[in-house]
Amino acid sequence: MERITRVDNLKIAYIGGGSRGWARGFMSDLAISDDISGEVYLYDIDYEAAKCNEYIGNKVQTLEGVKSEWKWKAVETMGEALAGADFVIISILPGTLDEMESDVHTPEKYGIYQSVGDTTGPGGIMRALRTLPMMEKIALAVKEYCPNAWVINYTNPMTLSVSQLYRTFPEIKAFGCCHEVFGTQWHIALAMKSILGLDVDPTFKRQDININVAGVNHFTWVTEAYYKNMDCYPTYRQFAEKYAAFGTEDKVNDNVKFCSKEKVKLNLFLRTGVIAAAGDRHLAEFCPGQWYLGYKESADEWGFGLTTVAERKQEQKELIEKTARLMSGEEEVELKPTNEEGVKQIRALLGLENFVTNVNVPNRGQIADLPLGAVVETNAHFSSDRVRPVVCGPLPAQVKQLVLRIVQEQQTILDAYEKRDLDLAFAAFCADPLVTIPLDQARKLFDEMVENTKEYLTMYF
Amino acid sequence: MERITRVDNLKIAYIGGGSRGWARGFMSDLAISDDISGEVYLYDIDYEAAKCNEYIGNKVQTLEGVKSEWKWKAVETMGEALAGADFVIISILPGTLDEMESDVHTPEKYGIYQSVGDTTGPGGIMRALRTLPMMEKIALAVKEYCPNAWVINYTNPMTLSVSQLYRTFPEIKAFGCCHEVFGTQWHIALAMKSILGLDVDPTFKRQDININVAGVNHFTWVTEAYYKNMDCYPTYRQFAEKYAAFGTEDKVNDNVKFCSKEKVKLNLFLRTGVIAAAGDRHLAEFCPGQWYLGYKESADEWGFGLTTVAERKQEQKELIEKTARLMSGEEEVELKPTNEEGVKQIRALLGLENFVTNVNVPNRGQIADLPLGAVVETNAHFSSDRVRPVVCGPLPAQVKQLVLRIVQEQQTILDAYEKRDLDLAFAAFCADPLVTIPLDQARKLFDEMVENTKEYLTMYF
Amino acid sequence: MERITRVDNLKIAYIGGGSRGWARGFMSDLAISDDISGEVYLYDIDYEAAKCNEYIGNKVQTLEGVKSEWKWKAVETMGEALAGADFVIISILPGTLDEMESDVHTPEKYGIYQSVGDTTGPGGIMRALRTLPMMEKIALAVKEYCPNAWVINYTNPMTLSVSQLYRTFPEIKAFGCCHEVFGTQWHIALAMKSILGLDVDPTFKRQDININVAGVNHFTWVTEAYYKNMDCYPTYRQFAEKYAAFGTEDKVNDNVKFCSKEKVKLNLFLRTGVIAAAGDRHLAEFCPGQWYLGYKESADEWGFGLTTVAERKQEQKELIEKTARLMSGEEEVELKPTNEEGVKQIRALLGLENFVTNVNVPNRGQIADLPLGAVVETNAHFSSDRVRPVVCGPLPAQVKQLVLRIVQEQQTILDAYEKRDLDLAFAAFCADPLVTIPLDQARKLFDEMVENTKEYLTMYF
Amino acid sequence: MERITRVDNLKIAYIGGGSRGWARGFMSDLAISDDISGEVYLYDIDYEAAKCNEYIGNKVQTLEGVKSEWKWKAVETMGEALAGADFVIISILPGTLDEMESDVHTPEKYGIYQSVGDTTGPGGIMRALRTLPMMEKIALAVKEYCPNAWVINYTNPMTLSVSQLYRTFPEIKAFGCCHEVFGTQWHIALAMKSILGLDVDPTFKRQDININVAGVNHFTWVTEAYYKNMDCYPTYRQFAEKYAAFGTEDKVNDNVKFCSKEKVKLNLFLRTGVIAAAGDRHLAEFCPGQWYLGYKESADEWGFGLTTVAERKQEQKELIEKTARLMSGEEEVELKPTNEEGVKQIRALLGLENFVTNVNVPNRGQIADLPLGAVVETNAHFSSDRVRPVVCGPLPAQVKQLVLRIVQEQQTILDAYEKRDLDLAFAAFCADPLVTIPLDQARKLFDEMVENTKEYLTMYF
Repeated sequence: MERITRVDNLKIAYIGGGSRGWARGFMSDLAISDDISGEVYLYDIDYEAAKCNEYIGNKVQTLEGVKSEWKWKAVETMGEALAGADFVIISILPGTLDEMESDVHTPEKYGIYQSVGDTTGPGGIMRALRTLPMMEKIALAVKEYCPNAWVINYTNPMTLSVSQLYRTFPEIKAFGCCHEVFGTQWHIALAMKSILGLDVDPTFKRQDININVAGVNHFTWVTEAYYKNMDCYPTYRQFAEKYAAFGTEDKVNDNVKFCSKEKVKLNLFLRTGVIAAAGDRHLAEFCPGQWYLGYKESADEWGFGLTTVAERKQEQKELIEKTARLMSGEEEVELKPTNEEGVKQIRALLGLENFVTNVNVPNRGQIADLPLGAVVETNAHFSSDRVRPVVCGPLPAQVKQLVLRIVQEQQTILDAYEKRDLDLAFAAFCADPLVTIPLDQARKLFDEMVENTKEYLTMYF
Repeated sequence: MERITRVDNLKIAYIGGGSRGWARGFMSDLAISDDISGEVYLYDIDYEAAKCNEYIGNKVQTLEGVKSEWKWKAVETMGEALAGADFVIISILPGTLDEMESDVHTPEKYGIYQSVGDTTGPGGIMRALRTLPMMEKIALAVKEYCPNAWVINYTNPMTLSVSQLYRTFPEIKAFGCCHEVFGTQWHIALAMKSILGLDVDPTFKRQDININVAGVNHFTWVTEAYYKNMDCYPTYRQFAEKYAAFGTEDKVNDNVKFCSKEKVKLNLFLRTGVIAAAGDRHLAEFCPGQWYLGYKESADEWGFGLTTVAERKQEQKELIEKTARLMSGEEEVELKPTNEEGVKQIRALLGLENFVTNVNVPNRGQIADLPLGAVVETNAHFSSDRVRPVVCGPLPAQVKQLVLRIVQEQQTILDAYEKRDLDLAFAAFCADPLVTIPLDQARKLFDEMVENTKEYLTMYF
Repeated sequence: MERITRVDNLKIAYIGGGSRGWARGFMSDLAISDDISGEVYLYDIDYEAAKCNEYIGNKVQTLEGVKSEWKWKAVETMGEALAGADFVIISILPGTLDEMESDVHTPEKYGIYQSVGDTTGPGGIMRALRTLPMMEKIALAVKEYCPNAWVINYTNPMTLSVSQLYRTFPEIKAFGCCHEVFGTQWHIALAMKSILGLDVDPTFKRQDININVAGVNHFTWVTEAYYKNMDCYPTYRQFAEKYAAFGTEDKVNDNVKFCSKEKVKLNLFLRTGVIAAAGDRHLAEFCPGQWYLGYKESADEWGFGLTTVAERKQEQKELIEKTARLMSGEEEVELKPTNEEGVKQIRALLGLENFVTNVNVPNRGQIADLPLGAVVETNAHFSSDRVRPVVCGPLPAQVKQLVLRIVQEQQTILDAYEKRDLDLAFAAFCADPLVTIPLDQARKLFDEMVENTKEYLTMYF
Repeated sequence: MERITRVDNLKIAYIGGGSRGWARGFMSDLAISDDISGEVYLYDIDYEAAKCNEYIGNKVQTLEGVKSEWKWKAVETMGEALAGADFVIISILPGTLDEMESDVHTPEKYGIYQSVGDTTGPGGIMRALRTLPMMEKIALAVKEYCPNAWVINYTNPMTLSVSQLYRTFPEIKAFGCCHEVFGTQWHIALAMKSILGLDVDPTFKRQDININVAGVNHFTWVTEAYYKNMDCYPTYRQFAEKYAAFGTEDKVNDNVKFCSKEKVKLNLFLRTGVIAAAGDRHLAEFCPGQWYLGYKESADEWGFGLTTVAERKQEQKELIEKTARLMSGEEEVELKPTNEEGVKQIRALLGLENFVTNVNVPNRGQIADLPLGAVVETNAHFSSDRVRPVVCGPLPAQVKQLVLRIVQEQQTILDAYEKRDLDLAFAAFCADPLVTIPLDQARKLFDEMVENTKEYLTMYF
């Protein structure tokens, strides 16, 4: 028997395969991996979009620099995509941007402002209610067509999506993948550069900042951070004290820019003593509403913007146009690898390397003071056919209080879907940190948001 | 050896023995117990007040109807009271009513209204910060002078007081005793009377409503309620639907009156499906501020009053005057048993009976989904030298979310005292459900409240 | 609405209703309860035996002293018995005495001696393998015909029987009832009489010895024992030191006799410091084989007998003859109440009283250091429609080691049945404390015992 | 600030620094590490032996091929060695080989045979009783002199040694290091070679067999094993079936030889379905005595030897002679790196690399079904200043039963030392799987072993 050095004939199923964003990077990332090859089956409720990716994916294969052979293929049913798959990618939009418009902007009428609206808060909860049935459907299909496949979810709300996959099919081999934490490694590198003058030349990698990760997706915390044998915490404290008032403006290097001044992150650090590991726009939404989102101008004052769905619609429009240009040949398809870890994770699960990175999976002991079974985000060891969470130690007291509140809310939402009980969903809704309005108004808002998105909530009626 | 039928020569230490309220009822309750006797040692930082109770307690012994011999004795040091005691009663006021004035009314300047202010919310937190060092001191004295004594706490904040006793002296035999739940048994009886016409004549006892208790003190829930083999829940639902809008006005019988219209309790039931087991004034404070205490008039609209400290001061003044009259003989000392369970519990711990009632002790498994070690309120079996909690089953999902938030806040306050860390105390403070104001204002309020009561907070500076 | 003082029209289903032992006492116990009435449906695979009990049960109703009306009725299907039942009694013999003969005596050929053979050890394991499918069948029938009924099991092996009921139908309201612990209360009373001269006149009740119960059925421990406010442990130590060598011969009073000299119990106490709460014959079987059952004569030397199945067959024969005499009128049916708690428990579940006694139910927190879900024996509070376990505190270190080994073995047996995996059953078998023989012999014995009872083990083949 | 690429000026304290085995390899391993340097302080109760290592260690530094500078220095007190140390190595012999002679051979008089006698069984328990006070002393010294140092233990009994370090100084940064598992990776490689013909050329590393590790030291289990993306389990089953009867004779390659025929390991696999990850001599001792060590010849029949202390004494004598030759120059000091991971771990803790390997630390959630706090062996991620255990999933049912029994025994021994309670130690002793003799003989044996080693057990008298 030869030594194993590569794995061929893989089948990857891509649910949401019409994606105009993430899928495109994935094409390049796969194409430059020299020790794996196979086919990618694209399934999307918008079959035409999947067809476009079939064309573009196969086009990428013709480019210079490609190191491995991949065939891209759009299919019309989920079953075709999943049958016998080795890996399943889930990257879907639950509903359309019209529903998202309700998620994000309806609460504004009641004085509730959200910076993202896809993970937590009123918008996140409504999005979850739409997403859970889709995840249930996918999990059942995985169980039927490819029970041994690895399922990698990129859909938000991440925690609840992964939770539902496991609730529906407990033996599923699924995890949720999010790059939000990566930015925090760069952010800490910036502190080291800014305060100590650390040399952050192009050979410096974010992984050089060695971190311990604990929390739930988008409300994750870096409880320990080292650069080699140097504890970054004392330096970060100086950094936070220096920049908390006006925010950071500097950049680590030309490739890494921050989309906010990080004032929320620095403020949270000064108050809790722990480095938060997500963008300010996400962090703000998990905190009590009056902290960072108490009124319309608050986000501006804290140096981060409120995402509007109008912007997202514009962005979507541009991507559709770009796709048309790529299809017509008006614009060249390029080989453009990302810094995402998806392909690296796939290779590790095939035993071709092994490494530790952050991931979202059910708590099996990795955070001993959060409920077992709740999906949490920590480091995990990726190796042959296994993702084994790394024990991250207890949550610091100040952070635990904030995180546990969210975990409990998420459990309630999952129970609400399980029981098809909108009143229980409202129990989560009215206790959400952002919902700082009277009960009767909260119920009115909830009912209005349900009405706006009822097409996706038929199971409750 | 004779069969044991009574226990004599007991020594009871009463910390806060100058009490003009609870102590007086205790005198009568002891006096009419025919199978125990002994001495009660009164210790109070106000020695004169203890002396008054010595006089009154001994006077009670001369009245007709007394069935057992008790000597009452004021002492000048805690050690004298505790040395060799069999039971220790703790019923103290942490600080004076001036500090309480700050607890309750300072937050009003910032738009935060509290109905009681001694258990949770900004006032409860500040009161806890004053109380924990006192509990630590008492626990150390118990450890030194009477490590095997049973310690019965009546002081608020109950949960944190009992928690601190155990944190300081883990082997202590302590529990917290609160009659708040009793009223809910009458409240359920009222529902049975009101909806079904149940005969609630004078022989009817609150214990005829058999309940399962779960939660933390003053935020306790009756998750199951039976009258004999009848489930009270369906009847209670009818009751809640009938009275939720305008509140209950009826009374169970002449002895049992309610001090609120129970609109909060009924509203909570309709939203959570679970019967809350405390007065509305307490319940309101544990919920998100905008629910029942969002503005000054909210309490009135929900049918419960805000306690003012002015009233408490007036009440205190009247009790001092009454005490003077009792001492001078102007007013007669009376034998007037209460419906409290203190003496019944003492008798059970002496093996003279055994029964199940609600109590506050560390979680040893009785609520498997709350953290082990946190003080919780459930039923417990009282018998010879033991208080063994009864497993109450998991908290219902909607209630769990609310209770867990409080439990976590309480753990943070205990940690803050342990570490003498006011910033950590503020972390609890600014995440409290009632603190729905911006962070900078919250900090200003916190600092002002600390300043107002700093005489009792020297360990932090 | 009238006050509730009694409950009529109950339906009790009796599975194993042909019972010639326990059923007969139950007839009298029910007959003298003055506040309940109804019907008892008898189902047995031996319909004729059930018919006999129908006759005898109805005959009891005609006797003087009867206080309540009960109709006894044999039925031919389990469904008829269960449909709409309020209570279900399970008291069956899994297989016949021939299978039991194999359980108890086959191991003797390999040098393994068992004193009972129905709970643990090779015999208990084989009996469990026969019993679990029966319990599964009953649980499914309860789910179908009377999901809200209370199910009271008397069948051995108790722990595994109750476990299987819950594994099959997790919402079942079941518990296991065993009087083994009662004898230990008398045993402690004997110690108090023997050492201190306690007056144990006929008004003395075993409940006067207040105990804390912890462990698994037949391997239960009284970790605390009080007579009123007196700790019985120091006295028991003197008692154990005095009698350990030769065993106790005394009796508490004329009604309470012991069937062994209690040398095992006294020896276990001297070594562990904890009072064991089962008969010596049971205790011996849970300990490593060489302790009390290392060779044929060992039982004799330790003062307890080995039960032979020949004796059981003789006893059965006599009961059949006695039944014939009762049927023919040759012998009078008598009203002869027992000291069992079955009827008392039924009355408590109907809300007619409430009390604390020992019971076998899944661990929901009552023994925090044993696995949640494992069936354990502790005290529980019986009241309206609920059996709520009492938290018994951690197991003492020495006892925990012994008990945990058994609990783990029991979990393995349950898993073995769930997976229909005889090899896994053998894993439990060969690690059992009594199986102190080489692996190959252990396997031979196991296979032989399986062969002997294969009629009941078809699901494995 | 320069990028960090190396760490200098380290101080390593070596407790047991007179070691003639492990210390010698460590000298070479350090010497060839090119990115760390510093001093090693040798402390030993045999100061002369430490002096020899000072000489030899410094001699190694003069050899060709050395890449880093290390100074070796013997000191006379533990304090000198520890003061300000970055790393502490513990590698001591608890007592002398005379005590070990009692550990291993006294039980033989009672028919109990041990293959190693230093980890579990009667010998392991007695050795633990001697070791725990030493570990307590070291932990206190670490707390005083270098509380932030990393403490790496090599002393047996491993689990109990590490447990005691944490019991004495809970904040200690300690772990236990054992290469026993490495052999199992080679053993699995052999199966892959033997059954599938896998090419195991010199570039093949044991790490190419990717394993999941679960259990306690020397009774560890490889619950999952992969070669790249190939599950090794099906192949291993064929291997086990083929070689179970006569054992393996083959070798993986010239560097890796096995000291037994692995018949115990193969037999355990066939019975449990799980690969055991320690040498047969260790595994046999953790199983019930009659399985593999029931009589004198049993070890031979199972293809592994019983270690005699006479052999160990001979080996010690030879090492002393070799040391003399090295000191006199009669024999050349050589640079001879080992395959141990000690230096690799040190480099990882300094942030110079990061990797996952097996380690012994307290359970913080890595094995959710074993008690939290108990020292267990699993994989862990080594990186900057942290050893974070990897969650290994639940133990397979058959293995759990065996392991849990040992874990509970170990907790009892730790409690026995904490309470200075020899009777409690005997409770562990008489329930040990190897102690299959009657109780009275077990006690006699225990007392004899205590007597033989009483010089080290003064704290119990």
